[in-house]
Amino acid sequence: MSGHEFALIRRHFADGYPLSPQTVLAVGDDASIVAPPVGAQLVQSIDTQVADVHFPATAPAQLIAARALRCAASDLAAMGATPQGFHLALTLPDAKAEWLQDFATGLRQHAHQLDLQLLGGDTTRGQQLVISIAVQGWVDDGTALRRDGAQAGEQLWLSGPLGAAALALPEVLKTPGKSTGWASHYYFPAVHTELGLALRGIASSCLDISDGLLQDAGHIARASDVTIMIDAEKVETAIDQADTRWPLCFSGGDDYQLLFSVSLQQASVMQTLQQSFPNMHCIGEAQAANGNPCVILHKDGQPLDLQQTGFQHF
Amino acid sequence: MSGHEFALIRRHFADGYPLSPQTVLAVGDDASIVAPPVGAQLVQSIDTQVADVHFPATAPAQLIAARALRCAASDLAAMGATPQGFHLALTLPDAKAEWLQDFATGLRQHAHQLDLQLLGGDTTRGQQLVISIAVQGWVDDGTALRRDGAQAGEQLWLSGPLGAAALALPEVLKTPGKSTGWASHYYFPAVHTELGLALRGIASSCLDISDGLLQDAGHIARASDVTIMIDAEKVETAIDQADTRWPLCFSGGDDYQLLFSVSLQQASVMQTLQQSFPNMHCIGEAQAANGNPCVILHKDGQPLDLQQTGFQHF
Repeated sequence: MSGHEFALIRRHFADGYPLSPQTVLAVGDDASIVAPPVGAQLVQSIDTQVADVHFPATAPAQLIAARALRCAASDLAAMGATPQGFHLALTLPDAKAEWLQDFATGLRQHAHQLDLQLLGGDTTRGQQLVISIAVQGWVDDGTALRRDGAQAGEQLWLSGPLGAAALALPEVLKTPGKSTGWASHYYFPAVHTELGLALRGIASSCLDISDGLLQDAGHIARASDVTIMIDAEKVETAIDQADTRWPLCFSGGDDYQLLFSVSLQQASVMQTLQQSFPNMHCIGEAQAANGNPCVILHKDGQPLDLQQTGFQHF
Repeated sequence: MSGHEFALIRRHFADGYPLSPQTVLAVGDDASIVAPPVGAQLVQSIDTQVADVHFPATAPAQLIAARALRCAASDLAAMGATPQGFHLALTLPDAKAEWLQDFATGLRQHAHQLDLQLLGGDTTRGQQLVISIAVQGWVDDGTALRRDGAQAGEQLWLSGPLGAAALALPEVLKTPGKSTGWASHYYFPAVHTELGLALRGIASSCLDISDGLLQDAGHIARASDVTIMIDAEKVETAIDQADTRWPLCFSGGDDYQLLFSVSLQQASVMQTLQQSFPNMHCIGEAQAANGNPCVILHKDGQPLDLQQTGFQHF
């Protein structure tokens, strides 16, 4: 990193972030140093958001930062990890001080909410704003929630209602500065850290829904070799069935709800847990795949074809 | 990540990388899982390269991958870390199978050379090729080589000659497919992992030169609060003083040599070490900063002003 850049980064990104007790050295050397807790495993993910692909380039920088960090952090929640910190790779078309200040303000605010220390970063120039965030956290040995543990006969649960973020999109594109109503779900997706932690030892599989319920449920189905049956009427949605946009709630991504499987032996545990997480609800079950793991959405006992698939970049 | 993307990544990036004994789960879930060795600290850095900023967009994909990974890995060497793995964030203008295959081939080849497992990634679409690589490795508790430990009276050493990568640039821009001669230093910078490991407990400070000797020496000077005196004639350069391009060897980046300080008590150790690392050589010393830490390049006892500074993005 050049001297000028270093100064720029230092000014906007060095201070004011939450401090992780495991951090030995953060921003400012060739690399950061973190001391892992004894008996912990490191959980890590990298997530990229590109201007006018993942958010409107003209959206306020604070909102862009919020969304980028929250979407990245959601992967930690989905693994049942305790957040620790992140590295930021920021590619900018220019280095406007005001924009950077706003971006850093949003980043700091949500880093505090998510308990993630900024450990290091790299700032580069490019034609287009590109934000890559590498997040990390800890799980006790062997307790991470993975995608491959669902068993036939288990229930499938969802952490909360779906659809608001996808429904917000036309509004977000028209008025990128508005961050209330549905748009709040788009810019500030809930990161279910507490639920993820509570599900360790309880859920047999888990992921966060970034590309739509149907597509992401398919990841659990294939990784676990089960067929997933989802009762469309059990899925809580941001709009009701009479609305023509209802299918979007199943195919649209960006809500970052957790989808997880739980065995019937956990029924009483789930009942207790529901007092702390009242939005979570059972939406279906896993069945034997018989060689063809897939996702079947049904209503009134009939398969429902919404003719929509999740968000694909290519 | 969408289904299509997932398939694309899976095809090109899932297999054939070196396997780290610490990896519990790599590519394919919401996040990777790594089990830290007992008594080890995690060393991490993120590094971005942008097409036509850090490399020619038309360069062969294998060379682009090689350079991106090697430059990122150099930060681990500079910290004295044992390489473990990396996460890749790849933003592409399109998803051409042939390009991706070549990129993955280069990435795999150099990941093996550098002993870095691909742990996870994200692929997105953007106007321009942007590659962010988050690398990580281990050091025994408290043994990382930092920038802030140089003391007045210590010697300053360099791992090898400077200038070839910067001198290659005109040629690289003209013929991006050529990777021999000076261009080999540009595309395949030496990553001094073994030297970094050997310097633990010996060097009092260390960094890798990515933005030019003078600028990066300034980082040690300020972090350690010393003034660094460099004898220009002791610095081994890719061309000799008579060449008008000689100043480039001091200001040009991209060689990724290690620059480190060593106390005089380590003289005999360094003499022994030099048998294993014959290219390293002493180029100057650290002096008391007296409130003004800086870098002074001198020749024949006179300060030398090359009127060049390091690479600045902004």
